[in-house]
Amino acid sequence: MEGVNSEASAAKLPECFSTVIPGWFSEMSPMWPGEAHSLKVEKILFQGKSDYQNVIVFQSSTYGKVLVLDGVIQLTERDECAYQEMITHLPLCSIPNPKKVLVIGGGDGGVLREVSRHSSVEKIDICEIDKMVVDVSKQFFPRVAVGFDDPRVTLHIGDGVAFLKAVPEGTYDAVIVDSSDPIGPAQELFEKPFFASVAKALRPGGVVCTQAESIWLHMHIIEDIVANCRQIFKGTVNYAWTSVPTYPSGVIGFMLCTTEGPPVDFKHPINPIDADDRHVKTTGPLKFYNSEMHTAAFCLPSFARKVIESKSD
Amino acid sequence: MEGVNSEASAAKLPECFSTVIPGWFSEMSPMWPGEAHSLKVEKILFQGKSDYQNVIVFQSSTYGKVLVLDGVIQLTERDECAYQEMITHLPLCSIPNPKKVLVIGGGDGGVLREVSRHSSVEKIDICEIDKMVVDVSKQFFPRVAVGFDDPRVTLHIGDGVAFLKAVPEGTYDAVIVDSSDPIGPAQELFEKPFFASVAKALRPGGVVCTQAESIWLHMHIIEDIVANCRQIFKGTVNYAWTSVPTYPSGVIGFMLCTTEGPPVDFKHPINPIDADDRHVKTTGPLKFYNSEMHTAAFCLPSFARKVIESKSD
Repeated sequence: MEGVNSEASAAKLPECFSTVIPGWFSEMSPMWPGEAHSLKVEKILFQGKSDYQNVIVFQSSTYGKVLVLDGVIQLTERDECAYQEMITHLPLCSIPNPKKVLVIGGGDGGVLREVSRHSSVEKIDICEIDKMVVDVSKQFFPRVAVGFDDPRVTLHIGDGVAFLKAVPEGTYDAVIVDSSDPIGPAQELFEKPFFASVAKALRPGGVVCTQAESIWLHMHIIEDIVANCRQIFKGTVNYAWTSVPTYPSGVIGFMLCTTEGPPVDFKHPINPIDADDRHVKTTGPLKFYNSEMHTAAFCLPSFARKVIESKSD
Repeated sequence: MEGVNSEASAAKLPECFSTVIPGWFSEMSPMWPGEAHSLKVEKILFQGKSDYQNVIVFQSSTYGKVLVLDGVIQLTERDECAYQEMITHLPLCSIPNPKKVLVIGGGDGGVLREVSRHSSVEKIDICEIDKMVVDVSKQFFPRVAVGFDDPRVTLHIGDGVAFLKAVPEGTYDAVIVDSSDPIGPAQELFEKPFFASVAKALRPGGVVCTQAESIWLHMHIIEDIVANCRQIFKGTVNYAWTSVPTYPSGVIGFMLCTTEGPPVDFKHPINPIDADDRHVKTTGPLKFYNSEMHTAAFCLPSFARKVIESKSD
């Protein structure tokens, strides 16, 4: 890990720490021009540069510890529950008895923590490109990285695109793509060849859930993702969204698709994790997800429904 | 109107314009310590001080025109549809044939615009304390203030608390309280005596919808509001929420309550405005609200459900 672990290096902080109020972190990006969300910084805990991106961890004054990759907030201790629980349980609660699950990205371990709540799961592969994200999460976010402790988990450090190409056809019941935005290392994860690899890696009627941006900010990107998925995935193709305060515009979306096979009705979960509380003993209770929230996540504002349903089913 | 209408006065701008990047507006408040949302300013269009608050209008670079009261964003042209449509149609679509509607606050006219979509409505009273808000909205937000053009509307400039006390018992089918936060002129609108006045002004089985803060930021305030409403309103008491990117944490909540009388099932709207499109000709199509979004708005994340349902029904 090439990072440094001190406050002394504040003079070398990237621009996101210096263009606003001193002592505040501001998230600015060409992905959301003209707006910025800022958090007050108590202490910089880590900053490093991996082979892929800049990695920063800071203690915020009101959102707990915060993980930042290339200037973009990936998670805060205060609201990570919403993203991790929804991106995981939307797909896994939609199919009966998921056994083999693949996570692409998700190096912080939060999605693993949520997958591990499912007692039917036998094998969890994760392919994260950036080892620094895994190491930093284990050091600073133990309640997130706890997902790596599950003995069903195998961590592969490498390129998710290459990993998927090597997967035997029909291996997984579910694939979860927990990526950053389509600028930087995650760009390929939003393109058609990648979706085709995912479809091949899934069993018939298997499900994929991918991070799919904000309906308030990125309707044009979402339109393309939906069109691509509609071509590749021959089962159902649905868009869901949820509230995550520290993501731009306060929401994040998910594409949920299935391959041809036993039909999946994403809007009516048949595998209710919140009814089975064995997982609570080890992982604690769910903070955000429940079956009602699952169904509600597929209800879209009229402006988004018009665009998405014209491309979807 | 004591405001000024120029850029020349930039030197006198309030602190929210000077503590951050030059040319950006940052929203900071003790209501959400440690975080700030910032919008890039193209041009200050208006700044004034009324008897009640500071009023600013600016042209933002990516959210259209923005109305700011006492440093807090009230609406932007880009996302005002979410708030105005939800606070209005959640109550009005839950009862058959609303005829008399009272709006407390809402001086920008956006709620009036939405109420006016309902052809059953015969009389719309609005009581706004601050005439400057009405004047500024008419000047800078014509597509919002258009609500004032409806001949069914009567504007009362004055204190909503006093107005309600003078209302004959059982006058209204619905009351919509479109207030700012409970710091400043709107404080009393979150207290029990005010809710009692609302209950008295409603017919049996009449409905009220009040702005009720963010589940991510203000659970303790919401807990109090729910407890107060539970004591005052003898019908149903429900909490709903929706996404509004430029409000703190990206969401805003609503308390929906009824007086004793014909039962109201808020979660299943019986008066579907989106099925009747006569209003579209004059006001344009709904951008955000639809019947699915209505029902989904009542689905709460587990952390909020636990607190709210222990106080509610």
